[in-house]
Amino acid sequence: MDTVLDYIRSHHDQYLAELVELLKIPSISSEKEHKGDMKTAAKALAARMKKAGLSGVKVIPTAGHPSVYGEWCKAGKDKPTVLVYGHYDVQPVDPLNLWKTPPFEPSVRPSTKVKGAKDLYARGAADDKGQLFIHLLAVEAHLKATGTLPVNVKFIFEGEEEIGSPNLVPLMKKHKALLKCDSVVVSDTPMFDYGKPSITYGLRGLSFMEVHVTGPNSDLHSGTFGGIAANPINVLCDIVAKLTDKRGKVAIPGFYDDVVKLTAAERKAYAALKVSDASFKRQLGVRELAGEQGYSAVERQSARPTLDVNGISGGYEGKGAKTVIASKAMAKISMRLVPNQDPKKIARLFTKRIKELAPRSVRVEVFDLHGGDPAMTALDNPATQAAMRALKKAFGKKVLTTREGGSIPIVADFQKILGAPTVLMGFGVPDENLHAPNEKLHLPNFFTGIEASAHYFTELAG
Amino acid sequence: MDTVLDYIRSHHDQYLAELVELLKIPSISSEKEHKGDMKTAAKALAARMKKAGLSGVKVIPTAGHPSVYGEWCKAGKDKPTVLVYGHYDVQPVDPLNLWKTPPFEPSVRPSTKVKGAKDLYARGAADDKGQLFIHLLAVEAHLKATGTLPVNVKFIFEGEEEIGSPNLVPLMKKHKALLKCDSVVVSDTPMFDYGKPSITYGLRGLSFMEVHVTGPNSDLHSGTFGGIAANPINVLCDIVAKLTDKRGKVAIPGFYDDVVKLTAAERKAYAALKVSDASFKRQLGVRELAGEQGYSAVERQSARPTLDVNGISGGYEGKGAKTVIASKAMAKISMRLVPNQDPKKIARLFTKRIKELAPRSVRVEVFDLHGGDPAMTALDNPATQAAMRALKKAFGKKVLTTREGGSIPIVADFQKILGAPTVLMGFGVPDENLHAPNEKLHLPNFFTGIEASAHYFTELAG
Repeated sequence: MDTVLDYIRSHHDQYLAELVELLKIPSISSEKEHKGDMKTAAKALAARMKKAGLSGVKVIPTAGHPSVYGEWCKAGKDKPTVLVYGHYDVQPVDPLNLWKTPPFEPSVRPSTKVKGAKDLYARGAADDKGQLFIHLLAVEAHLKATGTLPVNVKFIFEGEEEIGSPNLVPLMKKHKALLKCDSVVVSDTPMFDYGKPSITYGLRGLSFMEVHVTGPNSDLHSGTFGGIAANPINVLCDIVAKLTDKRGKVAIPGFYDDVVKLTAAERKAYAALKVSDASFKRQLGVRELAGEQGYSAVERQSARPTLDVNGISGGYEGKGAKTVIASKAMAKISMRLVPNQDPKKIARLFTKRIKELAPRSVRVEVFDLHGGDPAMTALDNPATQAAMRALKKAFGKKVLTTREGGSIPIVADFQKILGAPTVLMGFGVPDENLHAPNEKLHLPNFFTGIEASAHYFTELAG
Repeated sequence: MDTVLDYIRSHHDQYLAELVELLKIPSISSEKEHKGDMKTAAKALAARMKKAGLSGVKVIPTAGHPSVYGEWCKAGKDKPTVLVYGHYDVQPVDPLNLWKTPPFEPSVRPSTKVKGAKDLYARGAADDKGQLFIHLLAVEAHLKATGTLPVNVKFIFEGEEEIGSPNLVPLMKKHKALLKCDSVVVSDTPMFDYGKPSITYGLRGLSFMEVHVTGPNSDLHSGTFGGIAANPINVLCDIVAKLTDKRGKVAIPGFYDDVVKLTAAERKAYAALKVSDASFKRQLGVRELAGEQGYSAVERQSARPTLDVNGISGGYEGKGAKTVIASKAMAKISMRLVPNQDPKKIARLFTKRIKELAPRSVRVEVFDLHGGDPAMTALDNPATQAAMRALKKAFGKKVLTTREGGSIPIVADFQKILGAPTVLMGFGVPDENLHAPNEKLHLPNFFTGIEASAHYFTELAG
């Protein structure tokens, strides 16, 4: 392993120069005028894979932007195979005037947080070109320094993550054999904090619903009809109020049936994060947090399901007074789900409950707009354990374990289609300006990340 | 009285022709280009007052459109003085293409409801030129046929009713002595139904409030912060839900303290209207009505206070899904008030209750946008009794008594400033297309209305 690490440490300047070149390509997947840049970026990655010593390298066309594949599978069938997922497309750059240096002219500047360290500013630096590059360089280091790798490694880099990965599931299904693996590793998240390496082992799912309440057949004068006609806005408010209880729980029968309880080990790991309510209060500018009783803020934020109204409308929303009883009211209501809640089942339970709660004086319609599975890779999964050892060795710090409140739908897809658990090993930082001007990669995380990845391949071999 | 009635009956053609001329003037108070037409209409009315035999006739300028005054006060100091209020301004005419005949080219067509009868179609026919003309012609009939009037009569016709009467209260205060009277009569409402003459003896007031709920200091990702941050929309729904109870009552402490209870006589009069829930359900297109338990629909609609959300907004209201926790949510909430509820007191109680209901995790702001006093002229008031006898004599039908769910703010103003009760003696019909295309006046109501007004002056004299 030492020869691998030595190799890495003696190539920092080259790694940085190569990443800078990759970041100069404006591979914005959502903007048509960058279609050519997408192809350029895919070709550059394929060329870099070949240079790293991968075989079977190819640019795979899709209905949208292409994916890039490469592998090194000579470790033997008794060794595990790990699939590295990353994406080479980036977010748009507006508002351009807020960038201190142009988004596609990478700039190295001193870190604002860590004395003596430097950050690399560019669109895509952290999300995700810098992070996918880490694993490619780690594989190269193994191969150049030792001529071999302790595990089989496959790479799939897509070009449509920022537009919702519309062609990734079809690609996975079509190339299931090619992508066959024992586990997936994704580096596309931030670490818990500077100097605090962490593994994200759970993600929440989503059920996004829309509720329409119709009262009278037209808007009415509230003077003439107030007291006779059910007001759909009042009714909607009543219904929404009854969807949660005083303890902050979701009051839909059956909602918690499939929720996997937090283990003592998990709760201990959450406590070890030492996140205070005060810091959240400061961040949100509120006097008091809300949520389910009996759980800490970080637990509520990521390991417990929630129900939030994301939008509501009805009646007169302009300035001043208008004495109308509206005919219709609408709410968009989403529920964050945790393992093993099923978005389809939750949507059914939600719909049933709404219909039960609606009085006969109105009509309700419930629409299931969107669903996503929650995901979890158990803390005691061998891949998770290997990742924790690797991070510990590379960063020399205690490794934290966290769950994310949001969703990364591909993680559930990897599990469903490839049958493989995913390790989320993020090397970003919380203030990396994701999707915003002045996106940055903390360079110590980049270089140490390559070492962590190198360790990971060794640790995975067991 | 017979000579008066004979006079009226022999002048129908002339009355109709004169009303048609008045209706040709496009006196739309809200549109600047009709400022000249407003003056023309005011002058025409002043001229007609003089022709009718009134004295002291004058066009009174205001900060907006002028009012027109005239009087006949020779009945003697021992006789009551009645003030006739009406308005000569009319609503705009859009959408013009839905008018079967042009709004300012009055057209007589067969009634769609009463066989053999005719209706007069024109903007302002019912609201309010036709109705104010009724009283002027009745006074004229008395004076021409008998040379005298049993009571003193004053007329005030304003030109700003359709824009909220901004200058009427200042005018009343300035000309308090001129307008001094024992009662006011206003004909600017519909009768209960065709062939069902009625007196409106009560009006609801209004308290219109706006509630703002602020949670986190910016919109948040519901994945990252769902479970920590209080969602201002959910909180607003909770608050709104708690403002009414299961029995349909307003759940604000003190809200009902000043409500005048319905008397047995009133409830009997309501029952006599024989309005079925089924007819309301058909009209509104609903399976079930809503409202306060223990009261009939017509009672709830006009004699009981209510609380309705008139508008609500917050978060993402567009198409599809957006997983946001909004920073703010807003609701416009109005309460219809009944005698003797005070809008200012109700606004205070409402504000207090909202602040009590808001959890510490949000900030609430409550704004008092608008208030209006409820009004009632007791059924046993001599003016009301006189009006009922007059309608009975003219229409030959049982006279119904009703209360209106809406507000006519000037009625409370007459009481407050002039100390005079108001009789609402409407000659419109429910389908008169008020404020809409094809406004119409049912001509039998116009002609019989003149007789009713003539009777009213006699009955008022006692």
